[in-house]
Amino acid sequence: MSDLYERHLPRLDAAWEACLLRHAHSPFPELPARYPGSEAAVARGREVFQARLGAPFQVDQPGTRDRVGEEISPYTQEPLGITYPRAELDKLFEAAERAVEGWRDAGWQARVGALMEGVERLYARVFEVVFAVMHTAGQSFNMAYAGSGVNALDRAIEALAHARHAMAQIPASARWERPFGRDTVRLEKSYRISPRGVAVCFACASFPTWNAWPSMMASLATGNAVIVKPHPAAVLPMALTVEVLREALAGAGFAPDLVTLAVDTQGEPIGKELVTHPRAAIVDFTGGAAFGGWVEKNAPPRPCFTETAGLNTVVLESCEDLDAVLRSLATTLCLFSAQMCTSPQNIYLPSGGVRVGPEGRLAGPEEVGERLASAIDALVSEPRRAGMIAAAIQSPRTLEMLRALEVEGAARGRVLRASRPYTHPEFPAARTATPLVLGVTTAERDMYGEERFGPVSFVVSAGDRGEALAHAARDVRERGGITAFLYSTDEAYISRAEDAYARAGAQLTINLTGPMPLNFAAAYSDYHVTGLNPAGNASLTDAAFVAGRFRITQSRRPVVEPRSTPQNR
Amino acid sequence: MSDLYERHLPRLDAAWEACLLRHAHSPFPELPARYPGSEAAVARGREVFQARLGAPFQVDQPGTRDRVGEEISPYTQEPLGITYPRAELDKLFEAAERAVEGWRDAGWQARVGALMEGVERLYARVFEVVFAVMHTAGQSFNMAYAGSGVNALDRAIEALAHARHAMAQIPASARWERPFGRDTVRLEKSYRISPRGVAVCFACASFPTWNAWPSMMASLATGNAVIVKPHPAAVLPMALTVEVLREALAGAGFAPDLVTLAVDTQGEPIGKELVTHPRAAIVDFTGGAAFGGWVEKNAPPRPCFTETAGLNTVVLESCEDLDAVLRSLATTLCLFSAQMCTSPQNIYLPSGGVRVGPEGRLAGPEEVGERLASAIDALVSEPRRAGMIAAAIQSPRTLEMLRALEVEGAARGRVLRASRPYTHPEFPAARTATPLVLGVTTAERDMYGEERFGPVSFVVSAGDRGEALAHAARDVRERGGITAFLYSTDEAYISRAEDAYARAGAQLTINLTGPMPLNFAAAYSDYHVTGLNPAGNASLTDAAFVAGRFRITQSRRPVVEPRSTPQNR
Repeated sequence: MSDLYERHLPRLDAAWEACLLRHAHSPFPELPARYPGSEAAVARGREVFQARLGAPFQVDQPGTRDRVGEEISPYTQEPLGITYPRAELDKLFEAAERAVEGWRDAGWQARVGALMEGVERLYARVFEVVFAVMHTAGQSFNMAYAGSGVNALDRAIEALAHARHAMAQIPASARWERPFGRDTVRLEKSYRISPRGVAVCFACASFPTWNAWPSMMASLATGNAVIVKPHPAAVLPMALTVEVLREALAGAGFAPDLVTLAVDTQGEPIGKELVTHPRAAIVDFTGGAAFGGWVEKNAPPRPCFTETAGLNTVVLESCEDLDAVLRSLATTLCLFSAQMCTSPQNIYLPSGGVRVGPEGRLAGPEEVGERLASAIDALVSEPRRAGMIAAAIQSPRTLEMLRALEVEGAARGRVLRASRPYTHPEFPAARTATPLVLGVTTAERDMYGEERFGPVSFVVSAGDRGEALAHAARDVRERGGITAFLYSTDEAYISRAEDAYARAGAQLTINLTGPMPLNFAAAYSDYHVTGLNPAGNASLTDAAFVAGRFRITQSRRPVVEPRSTPQNR
Repeated sequence: MSDLYERHLPRLDAAWEACLLRHAHSPFPELPARYPGSEAAVARGREVFQARLGAPFQVDQPGTRDRVGEEISPYTQEPLGITYPRAELDKLFEAAERAVEGWRDAGWQARVGALMEGVERLYARVFEVVFAVMHTAGQSFNMAYAGSGVNALDRAIEALAHARHAMAQIPASARWERPFGRDTVRLEKSYRISPRGVAVCFACASFPTWNAWPSMMASLATGNAVIVKPHPAAVLPMALTVEVLREALAGAGFAPDLVTLAVDTQGEPIGKELVTHPRAAIVDFTGGAAFGGWVEKNAPPRPCFTETAGLNTVVLESCEDLDAVLRSLATTLCLFSAQMCTSPQNIYLPSGGVRVGPEGRLAGPEEVGERLASAIDALVSEPRRAGMIAAAIQSPRTLEMLRALEVEGAARGRVLRASRPYTHPEFPAARTATPLVLGVTTAERDMYGEERFGPVSFVVSAGDRGEALAHAARDVRERGGITAFLYSTDEAYISRAEDAYARAGAQLTINLTGPMPLNFAAAYSDYHVTGLNPAGNASLTDAAFVAGRFRITQSRRPVVEPRSTPQNR
């Protein structure tokens, strides 16, 4: 057994126990202030980040043909000026295939041990990741630490725990003995975990590490190599990942080319070439629905694991404390300016109003919309708070979308809250936008019936409460949904909604208010994406996420009996 | 917990233990003579079979539009005269979807219990299956019992054991508790196993139950319904299966339309319509490579599990006892006239000869070919023995292929053994053919380099032993291979071959002689098909065979604390 595996075994065991019990678990402190030697670590992370600006990022990988880099910080709106090696893809695949041999033969314990060490090293350099994520995705410092740092590492460990469990089911050998006629046949059998080959992992622009890390770990643990294809707007977090994992693998005695970087530009994308490359054996994709759909269609027969887009819904039917509900909804609509795959977009209400409190006073759609807008105002009116919650806007195109939707919304419904930039206290040039909220009826479905990625939501007046639920579930089924949120004091209605969302395949959060962000997804406990609707075909993390990434080969031969004539020869 | 589940739990537990330890296991007697009340059971099976001839087979399923049936017994070469309901597919899918609801909600224990009961009922009627398989596929009585009866039931139980293990990992509920700032958030979470919907299961003509039963069990256990699409030449075994499982499901209180039959004819195939039906959620396919390739391309994004064709190879490098080797090879070439996906076809030898015995006497390709032909003669010259081993030829097209290959083989190489019919002792009209063996060099690869389904093999003289192995591994990699066989007394060479076949993805049997048929695949122990080469993408049975057939949905809500104010509301 490998030393690294033994060293990390307690952490793996605890992770697997959490996967089975689905309780809250993390080996990491959830707040940056609790990180060991926090201040110095943050300062070091910032220094390293700043030293990288305007300089070539070195990755000692084969096949570099030139250097490219077009990242722009959402906080400064200035280019980072970092360039990355652009590779000849054939060379990357060849190097990765060569690297697989020793990796495969080392056995899964050695692989999982080396990858747990990689996780440890990513954690040691997490503030480098934090600044990289801030200045590419636009996340706040705290979210970059919690969501893109430690929670993403938890997802990585979760994937390793699942991969270990799947592989540990396959014994290395077995003795098989059975009568055939009057004879007994005795065979010794040996079984090998055989990787598929070279995996390609696409990372998205707004939350690159959260999906990519577990995908990479799942592929690597099962013996494959991974070529990482970051979004051109958010290369640095993945380049760092590649750097750290290459070091960890080399440190454990493996070929670093097990993990390589394939960078492209918006103008010359390489995604299709990667997906259909004859040596590509597995595809993981997180990103937009359009290219995601193409991947799902063109990656097979390669196993492909996708998360594309979520049209997440809220049904607000009745509640005890409308202010508490609207505070929670407002928070989730502001959080990272709703640039999360779990952020809700469409808030359905009965057009007759939401029943509130023990007397069931009806709060009509206008009132709910106005009070939601006020709750958002309260969160974003103060720049320091806005900076912490709403952070920055990753893509300039999001601002264009907001402008266009505001005009369209005014014409077809009502602008409940206009989106305006706010001035970030630390980065006055930051690209920012407070949430746009539009009030509409279900007649405007062509406007709200697709994912509008960014800080926009629709308060949709939807007939009776049955229709509200039906519309919400239909959005999920037809357009894909990851999360869903329900507020109701009627247990029968709640039960119907649980059934409807289970069929549609969205994770439902019921009557949650208070300090937890509604759309928080807990590693080891919440299954992220069901695979039952167009929001993606894979789940973080279930058995299916790891099981297909390796295959089992075997050989068998007669047992040679000591001190007797060999049987069956 | 369901009564049926509890009743069958010991058998399930024993099966799962065997899956983990990969030892020899079966709850069933391997010989028909050991079946309880054997004689009466066989007589009853025969009677039921005979009573079905010339009559409509009743399946009380919806949407019947007319009746068809074109089976011809390979033993009598007479039509069976049985007609089956041909269904409107939309009606089958609708009924199946309705049936899924109660099945899904019953929970996995109830489902697995009902299916284990189905297995029990199939075993109780196994001799009906035996006669059905004999008179459609052409298997011998003994093989129909062992291979298509109890071993197929073992594969079914194996799939159920895997499905149970995968589903048992998902708790029904969990309590999750974590601090957020100064507060503690407590959530109760509930998890559901959500089926994908309606699976379509294609069964092949020569070995219908062996792949179809585990596929059906894997889909059903995980909450799906199954529409069974038999090969038009071998409907009866699957019609029987549908009948038995519908009864078992109804007996357990479930909708029988969870299992329905979709029959077609050679002239009007419905395969493509089934695979691409908007309600088809999973596809299992066993059958020819041409349509199998189409399925693999067109089934996605539906999960699809295939076994298509195997170009199985032998490398004969050196051995201690050439006669023992050739007896084993002859037996496997005769067994069910090599109409098994595990039958070898290409036998590679060094052109300089096979080293034999301690002195390493070289036996050249001509000598090996001639002695192999003699070993086959010894097996098929006596009609009773030929009947038991070679049985009948499923398809008349196989005879055409043999005739054409004999001519081509004579022109391009040497006919080491000609194929001739033999007279079956019990069924004088049986469609039979003894093995054709052709001697060629690697220059004739276009003749032997694809699967020739039926009793034909090629003794290929292949340069040195390194080239012999390289050619064999290339066949597997490029054309697909399930099994592979190696004879060598050189451990270094054996080790190279193990590596080569593990990479190519064929199961390797080394130096096996004696009473066990070389290509015997043991349930619970041998992984059948690796998914690493074109012979198929799925394995019987690994975690990946079951894990993707269901998804996990969840809901979560604040814990309501007794005797205190609700938290977080």
